[in-house]
Amino acid sequence: MVGITAALEMFHAAALVHDDLLDQSDTRRGKPSVHKKFEALHEQSGWAGSHERFGVAGSVLVGDLMLGWSSEIFGNALLHSPTSEIEAACRNEFSKMRVEVMAGQYLDVLEENAAPTRPIEELVGRANRVMLYKTAKYSIEAPLLIGAAFAGATPALLRGLSAFGIPLGMAFQLKDDILGVFGDPAVTGKPAGDDLREGKRTVLVGLTREALTTSVGNIFDEMLSSRSLDAEQIGFLQRTIVDSGALAKSERMMEELADESLSALELLDIDARAKEQLRGLALKVIQREA
Amino acid sequence: MVGITAALEMFHAAALVHDDLLDQSDTRRGKPSVHKKFEALHEQSGWAGSHERFGVAGSVLVGDLMLGWSSEIFGNALLHSPTSEIEAACRNEFSKMRVEVMAGQYLDVLEENAAPTRPIEELVGRANRVMLYKTAKYSIEAPLLIGAAFAGATPALLRGLSAFGIPLGMAFQLKDDILGVFGDPAVTGKPAGDDLREGKRTVLVGLTREALTTSVGNIFDEMLSSRSLDAEQIGFLQRTIVDSGALAKSERMMEELADESLSALELLDIDARAKEQLRGLALKVIQREA
Repeated sequence: MVGITAALEMFHAAALVHDDLLDQSDTRRGKPSVHKKFEALHEQSGWAGSHERFGVAGSVLVGDLMLGWSSEIFGNALLHSPTSEIEAACRNEFSKMRVEVMAGQYLDVLEENAAPTRPIEELVGRANRVMLYKTAKYSIEAPLLIGAAFAGATPALLRGLSAFGIPLGMAFQLKDDILGVFGDPAVTGKPAGDDLREGKRTVLVGLTREALTTSVGNIFDEMLSSRSLDAEQIGFLQRTIVDSGALAKSERMMEELADESLSALELLDIDARAKEQLRGLALKVIQREA
Repeated sequence: MVGITAALEMFHAAALVHDDLLDQSDTRRGKPSVHKKFEALHEQSGWAGSHERFGVAGSVLVGDLMLGWSSEIFGNALLHSPTSEIEAACRNEFSKMRVEVMAGQYLDVLEENAAPTRPIEELVGRANRVMLYKTAKYSIEAPLLIGAAFAGATPALLRGLSAFGIPLGMAFQLKDDILGVFGDPAVTGKPAGDDLREGKRTVLVGLTREALTTSVGNIFDEMLSSRSLDAEQIGFLQRTIVDSGALAKSERMMEELADESLSALELLDIDARAKEQLRGLALKVIQREA
């Protein structure tokens, strides 16, 4: 089992290396991101060619190497599967996860680029879909299903875990989006309104856009796409999100999803200790402030 | 077995998607490369943001998706392994291949950037190392070992296959490097002197640099790094490579490696039909003109 979680961790680390490249994030966990490390190496070494291209190359290859290691660790862990049915089921869940997160990442990049051309009434649905693949399935449902499949769970239990994990993951992301706009920098460790600065197209933003008139909506969009907001502009966007009713709507959605998740947890046919642990996890996810 | 070869093909296709991004190659197999397809999609759709960044994101994610599919196909194929020892051996060879090719790709990018700062006497050794990992191990040795491991080959036979495959792969790359500089465009389908235009740091180039005086060497380097050579400059570089004796030396190395490979083939304890097929493959690799 430790091999399977190690494979998940390695996969996740690989996805972050590539994600930081795609998002052009300079730091990760307080240190330079991998493409920035390769850029710096190039710069300090006085080599020919472009720093940036070397950063792209180095980080793509490191991520690929780590994806390979993840498969290696996973495959070796499954050499000790109790039965070949269990191996096949576990492998199936891991494979689904890999496809879903790459689809989710692509949809995320796509909507970031395409949002200005989308009909306003589609924005919430599109943001929901990104959140389903990128967060709910990847971060919560898949690890549950992979572990459960390895423990020989029945199809009914796997469905039950999905019914618990997916709304929990959606609630987690809605909370994340709210913290990304209104979180206290002293608690989150990120600058205030960080998601607004990055122009993220979240459900919260979609709900806001639905509620705005065309003229205010256009200003809102323009500011969100500018990527260089000052504190006053951040304040304007925050107030607009509150005044439009989108924050309240988003918080209500979050609570409904959290309730749905906890109800599904009650119905799970698993032992009391496991249920207690999952409830603890769920509450931590929903109630966090950072 | 077909599953294992399909996993190899999928892995290779993924590596090419990322390789084209790293090399900024516009085409692959006569069609736009994957990052160029995503760039064009972005351009045609009138989305926000940069075409180029969207091309990076799309091609990184498509390559990652394909790496995942490769692992999925491979894992499913191994569900039908005759024994768990065979599964472990086959998995081990596949994992080694994934690491070796990424290391080889990185060394290749590294030397392309770092070559001007390397001592001249190291150039051939460094180019040899890239060729060992990127071509000999990846394209020839690894597929042989993966297939043989799945067929339950003994450690002695695996070693024998390496002794056949590695020099064959090195010979293949030396031939490739010669064709990249002197190949007939009508036969290779690539422009004359294509590798020179791209500034590739091959063994052939290393052998040339070793033989040149400092002043001619500096001109040679400068032209090789310029990435915008006209036909006359290509002709000058081609003549310099011939006059330095590097072409003849490279052809001699190639013949020695081919002989070494064919001798190792004779020693292999495999049935006559398989040996004949491997000999046919080897001769095709060595004698090709495109």
